[in-house]
Amino acid sequence: VLPQLDRLLASLVSPSNEHADQARRYHATLTKPSGSLGRLESLGAQLSGIYRAMPPPPAKPAVALFAGDHGIVAEGVTPWPSEVTAQMVRNIATGGAAINAIALSTRATLYVIDVGVAGPPIDHPNVLNRRVRSGTANFHRQPAMTVDEAEQAIAVGATIANELIESGANVLVGGEMGIGNTTPAAALIAALCDEDPINVTGRGTGVDDAMYAHKVRVIAESIDRCGGPDDPIQLLAELGGLEIAALAGFYIGAAALRVPIVVDGVICIAAALVANEIDPIVSRYMVSGHRSTEPGASIGLSALRLRPLLDLEMRLGEGSGATLALPLIDAAGAVLRDMATFDSAAVTERD
Amino acid sequence: VLPQLDRLLASLVSPSNEHADQARRYHATLTKPSGSLGRLESLGAQLSGIYRAMPPPPAKPAVALFAGDHGIVAEGVTPWPSEVTAQMVRNIATGGAAINAIALSTRATLYVIDVGVAGPPIDHPNVLNRRVRSGTANFHRQPAMTVDEAEQAIAVGATIANELIESGANVLVGGEMGIGNTTPAAALIAALCDEDPINVTGRGTGVDDAMYAHKVRVIAESIDRCGGPDDPIQLLAELGGLEIAALAGFYIGAAALRVPIVVDGVICIAAALVANEIDPIVSRYMVSGHRSTEPGASIGLSALRLRPLLDLEMRLGEGSGATLALPLIDAAGAVLRDMATFDSAAVTERD
Repeated sequence: VLPQLDRLLASLVSPSNEHADQARRYHATLTKPSGSLGRLESLGAQLSGIYRAMPPPPAKPAVALFAGDHGIVAEGVTPWPSEVTAQMVRNIATGGAAINAIALSTRATLYVIDVGVAGPPIDHPNVLNRRVRSGTANFHRQPAMTVDEAEQAIAVGATIANELIESGANVLVGGEMGIGNTTPAAALIAALCDEDPINVTGRGTGVDDAMYAHKVRVIAESIDRCGGPDDPIQLLAELGGLEIAALAGFYIGAAALRVPIVVDGVICIAAALVANEIDPIVSRYMVSGHRSTEPGASIGLSALRLRPLLDLEMRLGEGSGATLALPLIDAAGAVLRDMATFDSAAVTERD
Repeated sequence: VLPQLDRLLASLVSPSNEHADQARRYHATLTKPSGSLGRLESLGAQLSGIYRAMPPPPAKPAVALFAGDHGIVAEGVTPWPSEVTAQMVRNIATGGAAINAIALSTRATLYVIDVGVAGPPIDHPNVLNRRVRSGTANFHRQPAMTVDEAEQAIAVGATIANELIESGANVLVGGEMGIGNTTPAAALIAALCDEDPINVTGRGTGVDDAMYAHKVRVIAESIDRCGGPDDPIQLLAELGGLEIAALAGFYIGAAALRVPIVVDGVICIAAALVANEIDPIVSRYMVSGHRSTEPGASIGLSALRLRPLLDLEMRLGEGSGATLALPLIDAAGAVLRDMATFDSAAVTERD
């Protein structure tokens, strides 16, 4: 393991139960029926525990979107050509993708990082070039990448988390773009949750029945090929993707710096499971933004013990569902910051 | 019926199917897998239809919180004393309630309207005094108000909708404050949805088992007393509340001016059912912000054919759940405004 990752892991501590309890107790004094804000109250307590601050600070969210390509696309698991990854990275860099619209609407700052797109370097001022390699290998036949490359991609993600937090962000959303990446995500979730591939494999961005059956078979055979190693970084090298490895590192980096993470759909959940396998403290810094329609998402969320905030039948990726949930996170802190107590407002409590 | 309400009803038209279809077709050209934004896409189509504009404009939301008191509190249906209504109106006017925190966090402008609080007038610059009467009568024994008063309260709500839209708002949230108002809400929902009171009655802001059984009995006996008249305004006069009548008028006024309405929890749903009974076009302008834990909310939403955007186990009222959903409404429009098409971004479409 890289020394940088070792240092990060050594600095991980659990969120503060004391601050979470303080938030719960304070909620009972605010001018509203006890418990009436439902999950906004438990979210506020979680945020207080993560920040070790009651009330939690106003949200300053940033979205880091990691892009990578996938050799597994050669097996015919998606109707989209790989070249779309680079095209979409350019589209995101110029502001035309769904995540741009949603990040602007929710006032989140968006960063795009090429950690493993195939083809020539993407020359655009808004794209951070941190490419570890140009796309993964076809993991149906060989490991997607080396362990060293997986560690480098993890380090890219952790470094980005550190950079965003240093520049003022205090809520981090991971997003991704990578044609074919529901296939490595399903493979990782199947391996990490010990599930039959058919239960965690979805139709991604639109495969038909024949392609779906083929996709499930490719995933099952790929897991058989490598035996699904127990070590999460070896597993990532065998069946992962560069953007998935970067996301796992991003989550570890955010948790090490005690900043809440908003998890998006099935690809991010696969990365979250890897990060959590590396150290289970990481998932305590996670909030699930939404429930994707991909079946692997729900299985992964259960394994992480996360309940999504939104359930809008989305399956786009890019961090879109998690970004859409950001206003809920700010509101959960706002009620703890701004509300009056029964005493301070001179409101009579119930009998 | 008041001439003002007659004019409003005459001006109601259905949202434009043409613009909604235009949004659906346009969504298929945007740089994302078709349908992958799920309910955000159908919401965008609904907004386009309502505004008769594709794309819909950026959201400029306003929350109108109507306050009123309830004579039915004398029957012992809530553990909170009626004086809390006026105290909470002051708390809202000075910025200390949950709705203040949530409205600030979601950048919605908040207005507080006294349409029927009991006791002396509330002297505060942030409280609009449009009081029709000082609290309703105890509807277990007699009508809550006269038909004339119900119409006046409806007119107050419609006038407020008009004022907010004239001042620039283009998305309207109704909220309410009124100790005991889950009881009239349940009574109205039972009568309008032809449901047994036990199915629509909840524990409101915290009643125990004995008080719950009593609350159900009071509601059933009150419906029996008046026979649950078919005419929605007569029903409102018998079993309603002044803030509920104002909300019904607010919804009708918003629909008449072709502005989307975000419906909150069980009290607002009762008002929405009344408005929809007056003219079913009104519900086509409605978006359900959230699913309250009150059982009458789910029954009312089904009757209105509305699916809530959020389900966060909230039961606070004040418009809090609907206000929390506002960023989703802005985002639904933002993707139609800001995204590139496959053509404009030179992104290859799927095979």
